Amino acid sequence: MTEPERDPHCLFCRIIAGELPALKILETASAIAIADINPQAPTHVLVIPRRHISGIAVVTPEDAATLAGIFDLANQVASARGLDQSGYRLVINQGPDAGQSVPHLHIHVLGGRPLQWPPG
Amino acid sequence: MTEPERDPHCLFCRIIAGELPALKILETASAIAIADINPQAPTHVLVIPRRHISGIAVVTPEDAATLAGIFDLANQVASARGLDQSGYRLVINQGPDAGQSVPHLHIHVLGGRPLQWPPG
Repeated sequence: MTEPERDPHCLFCRIIAGELPALKILETASAIAIADINPQAPTHVLVIPRRHISGIAVVTPEDAATLAGIFDLANQVASARGLDQSGYRLVINQGPDAGQSVPHLHIHVLGGRPLQWPPG
Repeated sequence: MTEPERDPHCLFCRIIAGELPALKILETASAIAIADINPQAPTHVLVIPRRHISGIAVVTPEDAATLAGIFDLANQVASARGLDQSGYRLVINQGPDAGQSVPHLHIHVLGGRPLQWPPG
């Protein structure tokens, strides 16, 4: 990882810094969870590491703690929304074919309805 | 994590043990990548930790190395399939609403075509 901790032009870095508004759901020392502005399910939350990482493709085994932090928060969000039994889908988009819209790693947490297959 | 390292009744544990066939794509010390038997995209590969973990919901920060291992292998699969530039989607299903079909943690790696939104 040779990226800076924060990119001043990054939408999510600016949200994390409090420079742009977002509906915060939960947060931890290493990550935040915000409502997706265009929700695709009753629960549709984005879990974002505070550290700027452009996408999953650049994550290496050295980033294990960051990965663990975002999945722990994703699970916390799912529990807080009562999805433990019904289930939920976690989605990470990398690059154009996946429609990655912000070049800062994030997990989509979707639940609260039956999710179809294929996942796009 | 109080689960055994291996569940003798688990489909993926049996594939990992060589007791059931699968089309292996890549493997590392901690994970294997196999072709999905019902592919939904030109690349549709499952990345599975060798250790039995029933799903993402039971993963804790203590499992950081396991998480890092499966995402590292997912990225290796994407690179091997030439998806670095075009992109790919990683999907983890937890529970019935998401259609989790095997209770052993796995990442779906999808790419090779534009992926739609919502992701199910």
